[in-house]
Amino acid sequence: MAKTLVFGHQNPDTDTIASAIGASYLLNTLYDQDTEAVALGTVNDETKFALDKFGVAAPRVIETADTEDVYLVDHNEAAQSVANIAEVNVLGIYDHHKFDFKSSAPLYIINKPWGSVATILFFEFKTANVAIPAEIAGLLASAVISDTLLLKSPTTTAMDKEALAGLAAAAGLDDVEAYGLALLKAGTDLSKKSEKELIDGDAKSFEIGGHTFRIGQVNTVDIDEVLTRQAALETEIKAEMAAEGYDNFLFVITDILNSNSKALYIGAETAAVEKAFDKSLTDNVIDLPGVVSRKKQVVPPLNAAF
Amino acid sequence: MAKTLVFGHQNPDTDTIASAIGASYLLNTLYDQDTEAVALGTVNDETKFALDKFGVAAPRVIETADTEDVYLVDHNEAAQSVANIAEVNVLGIYDHHKFDFKSSAPLYIINKPWGSVATILFFEFKTANVAIPAEIAGLLASAVISDTLLLKSPTTTAMDKEALAGLAAAAGLDDVEAYGLALLKAGTDLSKKSEKELIDGDAKSFEIGGHTFRIGQVNTVDIDEVLTRQAALETEIKAEMAAEGYDNFLFVITDILNSNSKALYIGAETAAVEKAFDKSLTDNVIDLPGVVSRKKQVVPPLNAAF
Repeated sequence: MAKTLVFGHQNPDTDTIASAIGASYLLNTLYDQDTEAVALGTVNDETKFALDKFGVAAPRVIETADTEDVYLVDHNEAAQSVANIAEVNVLGIYDHHKFDFKSSAPLYIINKPWGSVATILFFEFKTANVAIPAEIAGLLASAVISDTLLLKSPTTTAMDKEALAGLAAAAGLDDVEAYGLALLKAGTDLSKKSEKELIDGDAKSFEIGGHTFRIGQVNTVDIDEVLTRQAALETEIKAEMAAEGYDNFLFVITDILNSNSKALYIGAETAAVEKAFDKSLTDNVIDLPGVVSRKKQVVPPLNAAF
Repeated sequence: MAKTLVFGHQNPDTDTIASAIGASYLLNTLYDQDTEAVALGTVNDETKFALDKFGVAAPRVIETADTEDVYLVDHNEAAQSVANIAEVNVLGIYDHHKFDFKSSAPLYIINKPWGSVATILFFEFKTANVAIPAEIAGLLASAVISDTLLLKSPTTTAMDKEALAGLAAAAGLDDVEAYGLALLKAGTDLSKKSEKELIDGDAKSFEIGGHTFRIGQVNTVDIDEVLTRQAALETEIKAEMAAEGYDNFLFVITDILNSNSKALYIGAETAAVEKAFDKSLTDNVIDLPGVVSRKKQVVPPLNAAF
């Protein structure tokens, strides 16, 4: 019989990949499930750095789920999930996002407003007294670092700090700061990426005020270097909006060293976008000082502005 | 400042009342919240029996939530919640139902497919190493008994059995079986109730296959005695359907001693209802042998039939 699939969101990031692997291990060990961690896309450079460091193979990539039952990690909204999500039965969800989920039967949901799903899993392992294998602890530590930008993002909670310390210890990671910076930098070499790869990587779809918003984000150590490619980025964004039917596209470029962002916006809702961030768009670019978290600092103000 | 409200569903049952009281205590003790357990209606006879037994006052009844933040227990769907649910911010949910919930920000959700929310709370207390006061343990034990019909309902899990044993011990409840039967019987004296009270008590609204279903349930020790009032019940159901705009009304009458039900159905979807339960309607009544759980044995077959 095919194993029950465990997967995170499309355009997988480190938290989605690490959480799928961690949750699958927890479910198999603690709850006698027969699950397999899979991914809805190839891993990004940052995640590959973490997988290589801890000697774990990247999960198999799937387009549709071929099992009746699945577990979701790091997402709950259908738009971010596998193509045939409406046809499968969700047995459980480990997530840390806003919620928009409908089931026809009772299920397991553990959703907590913490910095990463890896943090939630760390405490699930701890509560259940299940030891975390070193390589999985290393991946989960990488996920906490990735989602909280080394505990500097405003999404960071006290639980994330405790989890990262515990996971680093279990992984035998002596210098978390040095490893964390190397991990984050591994995800910021954008020079080899096409414009399409830049706008697609980590992009998610949102329904905001009745409009479709596609919101992408890249991490960098030099925002202006990314913006030298603005014209080509806009061409690619417009082509994708036309092809996919997105009304709005917001491409957030985040300086992970200084915790600031600028965003490139294409769409007709300029007034609402300016209102959301209390800044003016200049040549389609809006300055977002102090913004690093899409979930906490981009989506909620947009929701509020509509 | 007003306390953050914690409440269960409309037409409160014992699990909704006990869980609101238990969750409020847990939140105040473990998470330094300042919460108050309230109710969306007056307590029923069964719940009153439990409150009297353990010397706890019934929660204050509210119609609308007058605080910005709330916690939900034993429900997540807006149709079953406080009137102004769309205007308040849900900080967290403890529930054991199917899910249909949308938030604009990350929040706490603990949803598990166990027999009662009281069971989930028992394990939350246990995990957090927080002692349960005897009177709250007694209420939570009553909730497990009520929702699982003394561990006989098909919704009963191994977790419910462990929780009831632990809660009974903490409450100093020596003879769980005798107390449980007395509790369940306290909820079955239907003779003093009007037809309106019978059909409203514990009734919930569901969206099933694009239709509005109002599904009520009463527990009894004699189904036929309830059906001697069928004509008057139908008159009251039709009046309520017209007044509230329900397309369908299913009134489930459950024999808690023999674990069987019959249901009175008013609406135009007779074919779907007969298909759902693989039985014929005779004079608007359908036989439901072995059915005791609305959540597990009534709603899912209806969903499947549409």
